[in-house]
Amino acid sequence: MRDGMNAVIKAAAAPGAELARVEAPTVAAGRVLVRVLAAAICGTDLHIYDWNEWAQRRINPPMIIGHEFCGEVIEVGEGVTKVRPGDLVAGETHVPCGVCYQCRTGLQHVCQDMKILGVDLPGVFSEYALIPEPCAWKIKPGMDPVLGAVMEPFGVGAHAVLAEDVAGKTVGVFGCGPIGLFAVNTARACGAAEVIACEISPERLQMAAAMGATDLVNPREGNTVERILDITHGVGLDVGIELSGAPSALQQSLAAMTRGGRLSIAGLQPRPTEIDVVNHIIYKELRVYGITGRLMYDTWYRVSALFDSGAVDPRPAITGKFKLSEFELAFAVAHSGTSGKAVLVP
Amino acid sequence: MRDGMNAVIKAAAAPGAELARVEAPTVAAGRVLVRVLAAAICGTDLHIYDWNEWAQRRINPPMIIGHEFCGEVIEVGEGVTKVRPGDLVAGETHVPCGVCYQCRTGLQHVCQDMKILGVDLPGVFSEYALIPEPCAWKIKPGMDPVLGAVMEPFGVGAHAVLAEDVAGKTVGVFGCGPIGLFAVNTARACGAAEVIACEISPERLQMAAAMGATDLVNPREGNTVERILDITHGVGLDVGIELSGAPSALQQSLAAMTRGGRLSIAGLQPRPTEIDVVNHIIYKELRVYGITGRLMYDTWYRVSALFDSGAVDPRPAITGKFKLSEFELAFAVAHSGTSGKAVLVP
Amino acid sequence: MRDGMNAVIKAAAAPGAELARVEAPTVAAGRVLVRVLAAAICGTDLHIYDWNEWAQRRINPPMIIGHEFCGEVIEVGEGVTKVRPGDLVAGETHVPCGVCYQCRTGLQHVCQDMKILGVDLPGVFSEYALIPEPCAWKIKPGMDPVLGAVMEPFGVGAHAVLAEDVAGKTVGVFGCGPIGLFAVNTARACGAAEVIACEISPERLQMAAAMGATDLVNPREGNTVERILDITHGVGLDVGIELSGAPSALQQSLAAMTRGGRLSIAGLQPRPTEIDVVNHIIYKELRVYGITGRLMYDTWYRVSALFDSGAVDPRPAITGKFKLSEFELAFAVAHSGTSGKAVLVP
Amino acid sequence: MRDGMNAVIKAAAAPGAELARVEAPTVAAGRVLVRVLAAAICGTDLHIYDWNEWAQRRINPPMIIGHEFCGEVIEVGEGVTKVRPGDLVAGETHVPCGVCYQCRTGLQHVCQDMKILGVDLPGVFSEYALIPEPCAWKIKPGMDPVLGAVMEPFGVGAHAVLAEDVAGKTVGVFGCGPIGLFAVNTARACGAAEVIACEISPERLQMAAAMGATDLVNPREGNTVERILDITHGVGLDVGIELSGAPSALQQSLAAMTRGGRLSIAGLQPRPTEIDVVNHIIYKELRVYGITGRLMYDTWYRVSALFDSGAVDPRPAITGKFKLSEFELAFAVAHSGTSGKAVLVP
Repeated sequence: MRDGMNAVIKAAAAPGAELARVEAPTVAAGRVLVRVLAAAICGTDLHIYDWNEWAQRRINPPMIIGHEFCGEVIEVGEGVTKVRPGDLVAGETHVPCGVCYQCRTGLQHVCQDMKILGVDLPGVFSEYALIPEPCAWKIKPGMDPVLGAVMEPFGVGAHAVLAEDVAGKTVGVFGCGPIGLFAVNTARACGAAEVIACEISPERLQMAAAMGATDLVNPREGNTVERILDITHGVGLDVGIELSGAPSALQQSLAAMTRGGRLSIAGLQPRPTEIDVVNHIIYKELRVYGITGRLMYDTWYRVSALFDSGAVDPRPAITGKFKLSEFELAFAVAHSGTSGKAVLVP
Repeated sequence: MRDGMNAVIKAAAAPGAELARVEAPTVAAGRVLVRVLAAAICGTDLHIYDWNEWAQRRINPPMIIGHEFCGEVIEVGEGVTKVRPGDLVAGETHVPCGVCYQCRTGLQHVCQDMKILGVDLPGVFSEYALIPEPCAWKIKPGMDPVLGAVMEPFGVGAHAVLAEDVAGKTVGVFGCGPIGLFAVNTARACGAAEVIACEISPERLQMAAAMGATDLVNPREGNTVERILDITHGVGLDVGIELSGAPSALQQSLAAMTRGGRLSIAGLQPRPTEIDVVNHIIYKELRVYGITGRLMYDTWYRVSALFDSGAVDPRPAITGKFKLSEFELAFAVAHSGTSGKAVLVP
Repeated sequence: MRDGMNAVIKAAAAPGAELARVEAPTVAAGRVLVRVLAAAICGTDLHIYDWNEWAQRRINPPMIIGHEFCGEVIEVGEGVTKVRPGDLVAGETHVPCGVCYQCRTGLQHVCQDMKILGVDLPGVFSEYALIPEPCAWKIKPGMDPVLGAVMEPFGVGAHAVLAEDVAGKTVGVFGCGPIGLFAVNTARACGAAEVIACEISPERLQMAAAMGATDLVNPREGNTVERILDITHGVGLDVGIELSGAPSALQQSLAAMTRGGRLSIAGLQPRPTEIDVVNHIIYKELRVYGITGRLMYDTWYRVSALFDSGAVDPRPAITGKFKLSEFELAFAVAHSGTSGKAVLVP
Repeated sequence: MRDGMNAVIKAAAAPGAELARVEAPTVAAGRVLVRVLAAAICGTDLHIYDWNEWAQRRINPPMIIGHEFCGEVIEVGEGVTKVRPGDLVAGETHVPCGVCYQCRTGLQHVCQDMKILGVDLPGVFSEYALIPEPCAWKIKPGMDPVLGAVMEPFGVGAHAVLAEDVAGKTVGVFGCGPIGLFAVNTARACGAAEVIACEISPERLQMAAAMGATDLVNPREGNTVERILDITHGVGLDVGIELSGAPSALQQSLAAMTRGGRLSIAGLQPRPTEIDVVNHIIYKELRVYGITGRLMYDTWYRVSALFDSGAVDPRPAITGKFKLSEFELAFAVAHSGTSGKAVLVP
């Protein structure tokens, strides 16, 4: 029976995590009980593992961690209408309040009182998970659960890219971790004429090439902005996608934009960053878009359709599958800075 | 010398056209003298050939006809700054006034006082052509002139498709003549998850498949709207592109749209058409966009980039190359309703 | 107690309505019990009264009719979080399903399975009403209930006008019934430089002037399109708002638009209408927007803010207040074609 | 005759300016000779007067300074078609190249090779001026030239405000110098429900109130962000307009925005500024727009229409008229930080 299950938990307010035997959840009103088939490791999980400042402020151990997942619906609570037992679901990880100004004007993904799976609510690195109904996104029966588990981070990259049309445009992606790779893939699939991948890891640059990048720039091997201006015949980028979180990369992305261009920023800077507002934003009339999460559920519909049609393919960016018991190894790989996505398969 | 040249002319106010020996043009201020390397036949040329009502009202014979072309710049007139001798150019065919409200607010492609090559000004079905500078769009040296000659009609299809983002959307294209085929190709290259091609000619449907259509619907073989609803699981089209000009197709496109969808209409209806405004536009909150020509020059930049990157490929839609002396055959092919684009190679 | 109440009901499947004594509703889960303070008569109510074809197909007597209202919350059912007893609320009349594609992508106002108050659900021309929570829009305490009762139709006009920015633009409003008057008022308050009101009733034209119209055009007194071109120095309208539902007005609005302009259509045409698609939509690259209802809840936030700030003022368009027992008189006034809004005050 | 004229010139590479007798210009091809009727002092003129770092790098004395003006056309050069002698014109001050990517895609106001009147080309603080045709914007005969002279800076404020619709929104304007005051006026005229003016000068706050501000916040008298959150019931600003150029104001504007809001930045920061990208841009999904100059010529059409209709009125922000010979006084007033616009009347 499901009276006990394995889970990766943050046991105490200190670095690290551990595999533990915990009570299995039971269904409740408005909630969906899921058997987890695959779960991917996100940068947020690494912060919780490392127990950085943000994690110390936000996380209350003990708790199950993890939020990117794919699973099968086992049971649904009272009032649940969008999925039923047997459905295969990918996981949205944000739970909006439904009442605030943003929630009531189509911006629930930036709800004023957002709860997050694996941060504010119990996570999914476990055999079973109990999730609020808004987190259950039904996917095509038979889809590989590993692909389902990366739809959530793929959605971040897609949302960053698709904030405006990229068809026939020159796009630069700064930072080619998993989300950067997904952004490269989305941009190319959606008509970007050139996709310039900027990344310090040669391994990740090769993955970027495999996912559609037309030009590879390693900031350690020369002046990134000059290289981009060179590639674009002095015009600069129509579209920039900043996913690295590095201050230098943000500044390079701003400098490499053409006048009237659009820059999406989703990479979390470690601290406030100096920006040359006059030359890089005002005189260029840049449009700078903050990007967080995914549109609920416009991004999900579009990413699902792109997956189902084969227009995008996240597989070159999935570089390791691990059992729940191998989670330490999986975290080490995710931490390396040279890998794609690491996925746990409970 | 260039004191004489061959040209296809409309000699008299009657059906037909003829190959004639005419004076070669000489350069003038603000104009560009071009050696024509390839020129494609447009529906408008067929109307002029057939001498329909519109042509009788608009065309003043004798004149050289034709407007879609690619050529090499031979000489430029005083004040010309955007091209120079030796440049390979594709031809924009619209010449805006530059002074009106539309011209001064970024909408010169719908200028209040537009002149059109091969309609109001001498055309390009000839060995040489003298074109206003705004009509000379510089393309990559070495590009196949046949591809250059179809950039203008490709631009109409691309403009219709890209009026809004299609990434991850379901697109229906109604009418798969050359521009419809280009629209199919653009939609698929720019991330459309499904592209449903609707066309009565089986030959053209096959070309649509070759250019990226995921579903083929022949209105002669069943109920088009039902077929589309079936394919889209009852939801309907996110995006419709009406390029057939048939009243029945326009009505089907309206009926097949999902609520909140977007319909671009570029196909010229033969007469005012009955539209169920309440059920098909109001209750659906449809966005209907009239489409004519190409954005000057946003569409040109994007289409050039899509061509150069290989994201699109018009070749499956180019079904015949003909010498100037074979123009009657070329017109017959273009007229058939089952072909792709016919191109003259002077 | 509330074991009985007065209500205007559609008693039988025939023209007319009657005042009756009916059972008062009691609260239920997800529902809000409201004491009705004011309720306005809509065109839809007239159709139901008249028992036209649409009404015969859609309405199941006996039922309480009416849907535009303002009231005080008396009691809320289980699960209701957005309002509480004592709140003053205006009524949204649409109840979306919450599950379909449109509902999940920010377009719940064009839900595939919409229910409507006073059409599919019991209405509000009564002392008390039981409404689904999504229909309760909390307004400022102390607001005149008569103003609250017209926020819903005001929202239709505002939504039609604000589908795109009107600041510094020339706007034409076709049809100046209550919603047309609200559109005039919104356009002027939101920066339209000229607001040309077109309407056959001289009384309504005077109300339009009082609400901000800068030019008055009576289609019975000359050629409407010529008058508009004259007023706009031959350029035509940047923005058209069709609210009359008359085929001739729709055709005039299309003809009076400038190239690249935007036309919102919300007026319900009695049957499919002939449209000159080529000259009025394609060659002009018109953007035509179908408009129905209000954005839920973007329109509500904006209309509330415009009301509260005094930027708009619906009062000149409210031409009569009637007791429930005077409903026949109120309906006659609403039917006249020369009045503003008629409001019932239970 | 016009063989000599008075002008305010930058005579040498040092602080200050002087009134001098210089040669009057004569007409040339593509240029328009104008009798200057009024000319306003801009912040840029103060930088040139003060001879700051930017001015030292950019300005080549001796030259006539000034660029905001209104005048009467005296003579037009060959090829000029948009104005003729006798026309009253306001001055656009930017001269785009017409050839670059931006110029050819509707973004000529951010041309890659822009020339500026009074910076790269002779200015207008003189009796006559010779301006390139793109700088001559025809206005209504009989308009007060002082109003005409402020249309250019008004356009900057209007462009910043109208980058997106403000109807029914809450707008914060940071910095109420002349352009800030024009922004306040535009926002209120275009339907902003609340306009919160933030400014350290009490005099300017009073002008802001006179021009439509609904709330006045003096950053010296408390915590600006808290005040704004208080006024907006904790929600924050839908729209921010940063025109002060002060780093603290930029940071306050970012902090005061609501999630999903839009911030236009036009105020020139003295140096790169630290921005909390994560909390203020990413997590809020802010849209940040750099703003410079005016859309050529969409902004001009809209501002002209707003002026002509009386929807806006710049007069409360025009605080001094001076003769050319009083230019030192005028500059001192403009420099004070407490005034509106100072205008020279040659």
